[in-house]
Amino acid sequence: VADRGELALVAWLTRQAGTSGLLGDDAAWLPAPAPRVVTVDSQIEGVHFPPELDPADLARRLLAVNLSDLAAAGAVPRYAFLALATPTGYDHRRFFRALLVELRGLGALLAGGDLARQPERVTATLTLLGDPPPGAVPLDRRSAVAGHNLWLAGTLGESALGQRLVAQGARLARGRVDLPAGLALPRRLVAGARRAVRRHLRPVPQLALGQALALRPRNHRGAAMDVSDGLALDLHRLCRASGVGALLDGAALPRPAGFEALCQALGEDPQALALGGGEDYCLLFTLPPEEPPPVGFPAVPIGCITGRRRVELATGGRRQILLPTGWDHFSAG
Amino acid sequence: VADRGELALVAWLTRQAGTSGLLGDDAAWLPAPAPRVVTVDSQIEGVHFPPELDPADLARRLLAVNLSDLAAAGAVPRYAFLALATPTGYDHRRFFRALLVELRGLGALLAGGDLARQPERVTATLTLLGDPPPGAVPLDRRSAVAGHNLWLAGTLGESALGQRLVAQGARLARGRVDLPAGLALPRRLVAGARRAVRRHLRPVPQLALGQALALRPRNHRGAAMDVSDGLALDLHRLCRASGVGALLDGAALPRPAGFEALCQALGEDPQALALGGGEDYCLLFTLPPEEPPPVGFPAVPIGCITGRRRVELATGGRRQILLPTGWDHFSAG
Repeated sequence: VADRGELALVAWLTRQAGTSGLLGDDAAWLPAPAPRVVTVDSQIEGVHFPPELDPADLARRLLAVNLSDLAAAGAVPRYAFLALATPTGYDHRRFFRALLVELRGLGALLAGGDLARQPERVTATLTLLGDPPPGAVPLDRRSAVAGHNLWLAGTLGESALGQRLVAQGARLARGRVDLPAGLALPRRLVAGARRAVRRHLRPVPQLALGQALALRPRNHRGAAMDVSDGLALDLHRLCRASGVGALLDGAALPRPAGFEALCQALGEDPQALALGGGEDYCLLFTLPPEEPPPVGFPAVPIGCITGRRRVELATGGRRQILLPTGWDHFSAG
Repeated sequence: VADRGELALVAWLTRQAGTSGLLGDDAAWLPAPAPRVVTVDSQIEGVHFPPELDPADLARRLLAVNLSDLAAAGAVPRYAFLALATPTGYDHRRFFRALLVELRGLGALLAGGDLARQPERVTATLTLLGDPPPGAVPLDRRSAVAGHNLWLAGTLGESALGQRLVAQGARLARGRVDLPAGLALPRRLVAGARRAVRRHLRPVPQLALGQALALRPRNHRGAAMDVSDGLALDLHRLCRASGVGALLDGAALPRPAGFEALCQALGEDPQALALGGGEDYCLLFTLPPEEPPPVGFPAVPIGCITGRRRVELATGGRRQILLPTGWDHFSAG
């Protein structure tokens, strides 16, 4: 691509992106009514994803982590704007083909962006604009009330375990997971390890669940967010935003099958990964007591919202204060 | 900031950004009607700005280049979303204070974003959402018609010359320009050199001009864009989008006072900088014949739109084909 220059790439992209007429101006002018829900998230090579990641998989991951934020608002995507900075020789077309296929499947359009060179690391930032479905009201973190039940729609820790495997050399190539070369793992744990890598590199945003919650009347729902920086930290955020506390049932925290054995084999602490590993990308939400979660989603009750402004973890009859020990981009450096 | 962590920074930022309630959720939910004009632009350390640039100046430059895109659409900003990736120890608060002051002055809000670590280079991507003023219709690049006059609202080449000086070591610190240490420049050229550095590092977006054009009825206006990648390349883009050509009057291209002498002293080609230097951030627009440009802006006629699908430059009675030789992020690598 480098030799053909940006002009050729943008011309190609404009053809690929279709005849929406949104690409090509300094700024995109969206048809009215414009979407009201906006989110921005970045993926940086070597920070959020391994250097060798297929550009198509990067495009899908970038979109997925942004979609997870829209899911937490109960919205669906309509327009995407991409800022992509890459070293020389990057396979932009492979990236864009995958991005456009995904967007098309969602009924969304690539409407603008910015391309640049960055010598060391692929750095991709996606802005998504979306709307809740007709009749729905966006979800937020501020609506948890003491007495609400706390629900989680997915397992914890698996993505973080996958990240550890990626750090040791696990790779995803053309849909296939290769585990680290020197990894000595009992055969019965191999499938779980592969699943963890896939879960980490290919998160699945819970758009349908977010919409189902957003369609409920306000008195039949509570707060919602996606768990991206670890349950402990994100639950603190939800509680702080709502001015409440929470009591987590340690025995109820959902983990994938065989997770403990896999953690043991890899020398990882399952509890630490589940509470603080991050990148789970599943929805955490509260509902009034008696209110069931939307049908057809893997939501389980994991505790309740309290009026005490702290987050506690109950395990084996004991309660302990849970610190916000999730993934912190800043102290993790 | 690093030791206090992202939580503390975000808490501080939420207080600084005011009580809009837009910060703090996974996605921002904007009040209706949502803005319809969207632009995204990045600034990468060592690519778009020098490594030592004051974080406050980076915030202003990042905002300015994005505002220039909104100006080209005739829109004014309402919401900003920031993705900021920085090495350890970056002075985030200095960056955000400047950004928030600027946004407040524009009546716009910081409504969301994403913070991350990036070991080598500060990489900042801003998404701006805006609207044309009431009664206005956004400008675009597609509305140039053969017979239109071509107008430019600023001088060419000065920013590119400033960029050359920055590459040689010129710096802006606390509002003061320091020229490169070893630079031997006649005293009468020093002020112009300082102005060029300032023009490069502190571009001034032409928001008011864009709005004035957008407020005109469609038959009293034409196409518009901002010159960011060099007049030659950007004029080609405007012509391609409109399906027209252009004839530039080489003698009419506006240059800052003393530009030729300064270029000569620095060993730069004034014509090359004016046509291909880039980052001029002034509006290029077309108007029907007889139609004057908005009053009070430094717009000068620089040629006309033709029905032949090529861009020509007339100098001293001769015409030559002008190639799209502006700044290309990809071939300039």
